[in-house]
Amino acid sequence: MTALTQDYKMVDLIAKKRDGGKLSAAELRFWLAGMLNGDIPDYQTAAMLMAIYFQGLDDEETCLLTEEIVRSGEVLDLSRLPGCKADKHSTGGVGDKTTLVAIPLAAACGLTVVKMSGRSLGKTGGTADKLESVSGFRLALSPEDLQRQAEEDRLVLITQSRNLTPADKRLYALRDLTATVDSLPLIAASVMSKKLAAGAEVIVLDVKFGSGAFMADAASAVRLAELMVRIGTAAGRRVSAVISSMQAPLGRAVGNAVEVWEAAEVLRGRGAADVTKLSLVLTAEMLYLGGVAVSRRAGLAQAAAALNDGRGLDKLLNLLRAQGGDTAALETGAILSAPVVRQVYAPQSGWLAALDAEAVATLVQNLGAGRLRVEDEIDHSVGVWLQKQVGDELTSGEPLAIIYANSEDKAEQAAAAFAACCQITAERLNLPPLIHGAVTAEGFIPWADLAPLYGLKA
Amino acid sequence: MTALTQDYKMVDLIAKKRDGGKLSAAELRFWLAGMLNGDIPDYQTAAMLMAIYFQGLDDEETCLLTEEIVRSGEVLDLSRLPGCKADKHSTGGVGDKTTLVAIPLAAACGLTVVKMSGRSLGKTGGTADKLESVSGFRLALSPEDLQRQAEEDRLVLITQSRNLTPADKRLYALRDLTATVDSLPLIAASVMSKKLAAGAEVIVLDVKFGSGAFMADAASAVRLAELMVRIGTAAGRRVSAVISSMQAPLGRAVGNAVEVWEAAEVLRGRGAADVTKLSLVLTAEMLYLGGVAVSRRAGLAQAAAALNDGRGLDKLLNLLRAQGGDTAALETGAILSAPVVRQVYAPQSGWLAALDAEAVATLVQNLGAGRLRVEDEIDHSVGVWLQKQVGDELTSGEPLAIIYANSEDKAEQAAAAFAACCQITAERLNLPPLIHGAVTAEGFIPWADLAPLYGLKA
Repeated sequence: MTALTQDYKMVDLIAKKRDGGKLSAAELRFWLAGMLNGDIPDYQTAAMLMAIYFQGLDDEETCLLTEEIVRSGEVLDLSRLPGCKADKHSTGGVGDKTTLVAIPLAAACGLTVVKMSGRSLGKTGGTADKLESVSGFRLALSPEDLQRQAEEDRLVLITQSRNLTPADKRLYALRDLTATVDSLPLIAASVMSKKLAAGAEVIVLDVKFGSGAFMADAASAVRLAELMVRIGTAAGRRVSAVISSMQAPLGRAVGNAVEVWEAAEVLRGRGAADVTKLSLVLTAEMLYLGGVAVSRRAGLAQAAAALNDGRGLDKLLNLLRAQGGDTAALETGAILSAPVVRQVYAPQSGWLAALDAEAVATLVQNLGAGRLRVEDEIDHSVGVWLQKQVGDELTSGEPLAIIYANSEDKAEQAAAAFAACCQITAERLNLPPLIHGAVTAEGFIPWADLAPLYGLKA
Repeated sequence: MTALTQDYKMVDLIAKKRDGGKLSAAELRFWLAGMLNGDIPDYQTAAMLMAIYFQGLDDEETCLLTEEIVRSGEVLDLSRLPGCKADKHSTGGVGDKTTLVAIPLAAACGLTVVKMSGRSLGKTGGTADKLESVSGFRLALSPEDLQRQAEEDRLVLITQSRNLTPADKRLYALRDLTATVDSLPLIAASVMSKKLAAGAEVIVLDVKFGSGAFMADAASAVRLAELMVRIGTAAGRRVSAVISSMQAPLGRAVGNAVEVWEAAEVLRGRGAADVTKLSLVLTAEMLYLGGVAVSRRAGLAQAAAALNDGRGLDKLLNLLRAQGGDTAALETGAILSAPVVRQVYAPQSGWLAALDAEAVATLVQNLGAGRLRVEDEIDHSVGVWLQKQVGDELTSGEPLAIIYANSEDKAEQAAAAFAACCQITAERLNLPPLIHGAVTAEGFIPWADLAPLYGLKA
C-alpha cells in the first residue's frame, strides 16, 4: 500500500460504486489491502460487494480488480521450466473429466502443463479428488519435485498454494455469505486471478452452461468467457474459451474412480464421442495458442495422433506413477471397485431425450462422491456409468446405466433418482451441438464457423 | 425470537431482498434479533442494507421493520401521565428552534409533552444542546422526576434512554459506514421507531427540504413524510407532517444560546414572521391531533393566544427552572455572551435573494457550535444573528448580521464566509412559501389549501 492510497475513506468508495462510479487501481488496491490487513472491516467489504452486484464493474475495472487480487499474494514463477507453459480450466460441470484427457495430450504434444488443483467443494470431486482414486497418488508438494517432473515429463499436478490470491479467498468467503456470488465481473476476477497467479502463458478455458453448470444459458456463458478472455489478454497471456453445454453429463461417467477410468478409456480411443471431441478441441486450442501447432486444424490432428498412438495414455500413466500412484487397477479396470453394483434398465422404448445434469450430480453426491465442507471425506468408488447417452435410441428393458454404490440402500435410492432424471420420447429430437462456439482474443466464433477451423463437421 | 424464526438462513434473506422480494415480519425479526445477539455478523447486515438501498422496502415492509426496531428495546410507558401525550420532531434544519417555541405553547394549551433529546451530531446542536446554553439546566433523569414534572407542568425534557431502539442504533452506525444512509424506507423506519418507542399518542413531524436539510427537494420531503405518517398511523398514533423549506436558515438565529434567545423572543411576540408562523402551525397541528382544539383554525388561535398572553414564555421558563436552569440571563439578554461580537454590513443595496442554509450552518459549525463526535464539546455562546432575512430589502452599509465568536480570527473567517453565503439582487424576487404543505393520515394538503384551514393567508 503506497502512501497515496491512505487518503481514501472506504465509505466514500462504497458510495462511489453505489452511484455507478468507476473505481481506480489505487482505490481497488486500498480496498483489498485494507480488507486483508484488517483496516477495512468486513461489513464495508460486504456493502461494496453488494454495490458491485447492482452496479457492476466495467471491463477496465474488472481487469484492475483481477490484477490487484493477483498482487495480494504470491505468483508462481514458471520461467525456469522448459517449453511453453499452458493451463486449462473448466468452470465446472457434471462428468467433466476433460482435464484428465487434455493435459496428457497437450504434454505429449510438447507443451508444459503445471496444473494446480485443490480439494473441491461440489457435488462431485475436482481433478485432484478424481486422481486420488488411484492408490498412492499424491499432489507434488515441493518446488524441487515440480521442477524435476516438469523437466522430465512436462506434466505435473501440484497442490494449491496457501499464499496464492489471498484477497480472492477472503472475497469469495464473504460473497458466499452475502448473496453476492452471482456477479459476472466478480466471478471472472475470481477465476482469472487464480489462473494468472498460477503462472501459465497459455490459458484455455472451458466455460459451461446448462442445468449442471454455473451459467444457465449460452449467452451468459459467452459474456463470462468474453470477460475472462479480456482479463487474461490484458494481463499478457494467450487465452481462449470454449463454450460447451452442460445440459446432460459429459461422457458416460459421473463420480471419481469412474471418471478416471473413462479418461483412460478416451485415451485408449474407446471414449464416447462427446467427451472425446471436447477434449481434443480443448487440447488443440492449447497447442495452437502455445505455438506448438501452426493452426487449430493442425492442433486437432496432433492431439488426435497423440490419442491414437497411445502417447496420451502413457503421459497420464507416467504422471500418476511419478506422483506415487499405482496404475495397475486403472490398467485392469479393478479401479471400478464399489461394494454394490446395480444395473438400471430402460423402462420403455424410445429416444433418450434428456438426462438432467444437475439431477445426476445430486444423486452421485448422495452416493458419497462429493463434499460439502473441505474436511468431508469422499468415497472415490461411487458413481454412475451411463450405458446410454442423450440422443441414443432405447429398447425397453435394455441396460441404461450402472450405479456404483457403497450400500444396497443408497444404490436403490440412486436407481430411483436416476429413473426420474431420464426423459424418454417416442420421436427422435434434434439436439443442440455440444460446443456452442469459442471466445478468442478476436471475439466470439460460433460452432458453425469454429468446427471447420478444427477440420470438424459442424 | 420465536422458535419459528430459527429456520431462516440470513444469506437467503439477503438474496430474497437482492432479487426484489418482500421480507416478512418473522424474517425481519430474525435479522434484527440475530444482529443484536451476534448470531448474524455485521457483514451480512451490511449486505442486506445495500440490497435494501437498491431494491427498497414496500410500505408494509417499512411498517414491519419499524415495529421490529421498536420491539428490539424498551418502550416508554406514558400511560400514567395526565392528558394527551404529544411529541414533535424535526428532520433537522438550520436555525430550527421551533421545538423550543411549539412545546411550551402546546403544554400551555393543555397537552402533555415529554420530549426526549440527546447530544446531537451535526453542524449546530440539538434541542438539549441548545437548552444547555441556560446555566444549570439538565435533562430530567429519573422516572420520578419525569412523573412529577409532567403532572405539575405538562412539559419535561428527558434524556435518551440507552435501552430504546437498540436495533436502530446498530443499523444507523452500520449505514453510516456503508453508504446506505440515503434510503427513504430506512430513514423513515429509523425516525419513526424512535418516535414510537418514545410513547406519545400524537406525533407532529416537521419534514424539511432544501440546502440545509436532509431531503433535497419538496417532492422527496413529501414522499418521506407520507411514509412516516403511514408508519405512525399503522402503529395506532395520530400523526401528521408539515413540509417546510430549509433553503435559508429559519428565523434570525443560528447557534445555541442565540437560538434559545430567539425562541424566547418569539414567545414574547417579537419573533420573525417565518419562525413564528411555522411554530404556530406545528403547535396548532399538535393541538388539533391531540383533541385539544376542535379544528386546525381553533388550534392556531389557541396557540396564538398562549403566545400573545405570555403563557408560552412562562411554560418555557418554568421548564428551564424545573430542570435546574437559571433563567436570569435569558430574561435580560445576557445569554448572548460571546467574547467577540462582529457586525457584518450589507456590501451593496438590493434585495437579499438567497442565504444558503447549508453554508451558514458550516460557518456556525466552524465557530464551534456543533460537534462531529459525541465526546466533542460545544461552545454554546457562538453563532450568527441575521438582522436581514431572505426577501428583505438592503441598503449598502446597513447592518446585515452579527457574528458571535470566541476569537477575532474565527470572527474574521465567519464574516468572510457569511458574505459568500449572501446572494443580493437588484430586483425583488418572488420567494416560494416557507410551508409547502402538510401530509396527514388522509394525504397531502398543499399550502394553498392548508393555509385557510389554519385561518392563514396562503
